[in-house]
Amino acid sequence: MNNQNIADLLISVRQKRPLVHHITNYVTVNDCANITLCAGASPVMAQAPEEVEEIVALSGALVLNIGTLSPDLVESMLLAGKAANSRDIPIILDPVGAGATALRTKSARYLLDKLSISVLKGNAGEIGVIAGTGGQVRGVDSAGLTGDPVLVAQACADMTGVIVAMSGPTDIVTDGTKVTLVKNGHELMGKVSGTGCMAASLIGAFTAVSHDYMDAAAAALATFGRAGEQAGSKATAPYSFRTALFDSLYAITPEDIARNALIETL
Amino acid sequence: MNNQNIADLLISVRQKRPLVHHITNYVTVNDCANITLCAGASPVMAQAPEEVEEIVALSGALVLNIGTLSPDLVESMLLAGKAANSRDIPIILDPVGAGATALRTKSARYLLDKLSISVLKGNAGEIGVIAGTGGQVRGVDSAGLTGDPVLVAQACADMTGVIVAMSGPTDIVTDGTKVTLVKNGHELMGKVSGTGCMAASLIGAFTAVSHDYMDAAAAALATFGRAGEQAGSKATAPYSFRTALFDSLYAITPEDIARNALIETL
Amino acid sequence: MNNQNIADLLISVRQKRPLVHHITNYVTVNDCANITLCAGASPVMAQAPEEVEEIVALSGALVLNIGTLSPDLVESMLLAGKAANSRDIPIILDPVGAGATALRTKSARYLLDKLSISVLKGNAGEIGVIAGTGGQVRGVDSAGLTGDPVLVAQACADMTGVIVAMSGPTDIVTDGTKVTLVKNGHELMGKVSGTGCMAASLIGAFTAVSHDYMDAAAAALATFGRAGEQAGSKATAPYSFRTALFDSLYAITPEDIARNALIETL
Repeated sequence: MNNQNIADLLISVRQKRPLVHHITNYVTVNDCANITLCAGASPVMAQAPEEVEEIVALSGALVLNIGTLSPDLVESMLLAGKAANSRDIPIILDPVGAGATALRTKSARYLLDKLSISVLKGNAGEIGVIAGTGGQVRGVDSAGLTGDPVLVAQACADMTGVIVAMSGPTDIVTDGTKVTLVKNGHELMGKVSGTGCMAASLIGAFTAVSHDYMDAAAAALATFGRAGEQAGSKATAPYSFRTALFDSLYAITPEDIARNALIETL
Repeated sequence: MNNQNIADLLISVRQKRPLVHHITNYVTVNDCANITLCAGASPVMAQAPEEVEEIVALSGALVLNIGTLSPDLVESMLLAGKAANSRDIPIILDPVGAGATALRTKSARYLLDKLSISVLKGNAGEIGVIAGTGGQVRGVDSAGLTGDPVLVAQACADMTGVIVAMSGPTDIVTDGTKVTLVKNGHELMGKVSGTGCMAASLIGAFTAVSHDYMDAAAAALATFGRAGEQAGSKATAPYSFRTALFDSLYAITPEDIARNALIETL
Repeated sequence: MNNQNIADLLISVRQKRPLVHHITNYVTVNDCANITLCAGASPVMAQAPEEVEEIVALSGALVLNIGTLSPDLVESMLLAGKAANSRDIPIILDPVGAGATALRTKSARYLLDKLSISVLKGNAGEIGVIAGTGGQVRGVDSAGLTGDPVLVAQACADMTGVIVAMSGPTDIVTDGTKVTLVKNGHELMGKVSGTGCMAASLIGAFTAVSHDYMDAAAAALATFGRAGEQAGSKATAPYSFRTALFDSLYAITPEDIARNALIETL
């Protein structure tokens, strides 16, 4: 993948406006809706077991986020996920807080076990926990991991058979063998609630327009990170940065992405 | 209704500060609260069956929004709605995503059947679905309808016996016979999650201060649309536009409304 | 407590970054997360009975807010609260809408009865209702109380045995005997949904770094009010004010607090 491929994927999201079905937490759900719109895609949030299969059948991708989970919600995720799998609709899993509680760790493993997940997006601690190589999670934040992040991401991808997108100062996307590093981003993204959830929404939008989910995940993260860089040139505090982040994603040009995406294939 | 009537209704909302009870989705609920405050009214969100009757009894209007529904939530809506009907408190129904899933279509019809709804506010697709004349809904967005929008809105009002407010580039408000077109608005309103929900909140606030619900609905939409126009003169991307939209509604003067409301009675 | 103590507590929050566990409403939950981050602390929202005890055990404080309650949620609050009490983790209770419905009044009293609450933060009407001295609540807003606010706050603290933080143009913090008045703030804070909830989040963050909960509560309210004053110098309408409020809290210096906190001990 080169920078022009990333720009082309962004163009494709804007042209096809894929519907991205979210079953997600109630903390950052509005941010997920607005970031999906700003990317040029179309969000829909639905969690009732009576309707999730119908909604996902209309959608280009399914985003599952366990940020404020309950056992019932996990069952809705399973229903939606099975319907997605039967139609080859990509599923993004964001295992928010895996490692912080037994319920979260167990629910993340359960969904990984029962569904064919396309991209597992988590912070370093969450990925380390799922890899079983050691990860610390403090609430919903990563508190570090044991070992080299690239090796941990690869181990997680190997163990789960799923493409892993590990967020951090440098994002790491890997299928266990190939590794793409994404170096775009801005430190204020870590001071805003929900940027991790938003990244998963964007990976959903990009996987909806490409069958190469590893490239799609890297492209989504590079685009989001580049929007963060633009926002960081306009704002110096988190909440005005947040406004600028949405606006920048909306206004970002494929030309800017082609020039400024910072990806590296190992 | 003329422009001065709209301005007078806005003044009345600000003077009486009606309580607007919402049973709504968890995606845009914060936006509904803040837009209600910016209009000069007072929001309250409550959905527990143990308390919705008490809350609605204190309120000037009830807004029911099925954006993230469950069967239990619909039962809370029914309880609150019956209490509202027994006190002649106006009810606004926003059938978000009717047509996208059986649960949504069925729930919208159920509430229309069991309650006396004052204003049914939906996008073109949703209104077409409820009218039974053909409507396409993609997730929670309208994807068009079959036939002339004014005729579809009238058919929906005729069939349901409810005043219909169909949102779109031109909003259409009709009781089946009379038709008011509202031409205020800005295209960036379609790029922000929740502007449809916010419109329903404002219709709630305006119906709380006028017994002519058709005029109240048109006045609410004209005022919101005019705030959108002002916001559009300040911002060019969705999220800063969103901030400007709330601010503009808060600061808008009755004089501005009297001058710039764009309504047309057919 | 003097102004330098307040500044020192802010420094301590930023250094220790305590985890603040929220079981709160779905209207303002995102604001609570972001304000906690802007203060320098770390938010976590979790309400499933399967995990609240684990989450609170990791946390520096627990914030319970009944803004959109259900009986099940109150039971989760009880579970979390008992785990907090057994570990001497401070609990902040925000009895949103107590007095507006029987469910809210009863739930607030139930939590006060079953748990050892560290700080009860409410508006004048809510505190008056809980004190039993007469309080009016309109939806979730105070509509006044019977008697002198300081005496009502003291009566509430006496009756409950809990430190009371009564918000208003002047905030009143009391353990029944000692009284601290906090005079920082800006009137636009009352035009933004959720500033009361955010105040409770900040009290949570400050009690997590000080064993003197009365001082911690006053310090949190003075810091928040001072951020409001700074925001009010940058914005004149509610939504841009809201952005400035988050940004100001993030950027506020201990030196500014030491100079400009307006507290008075009676």
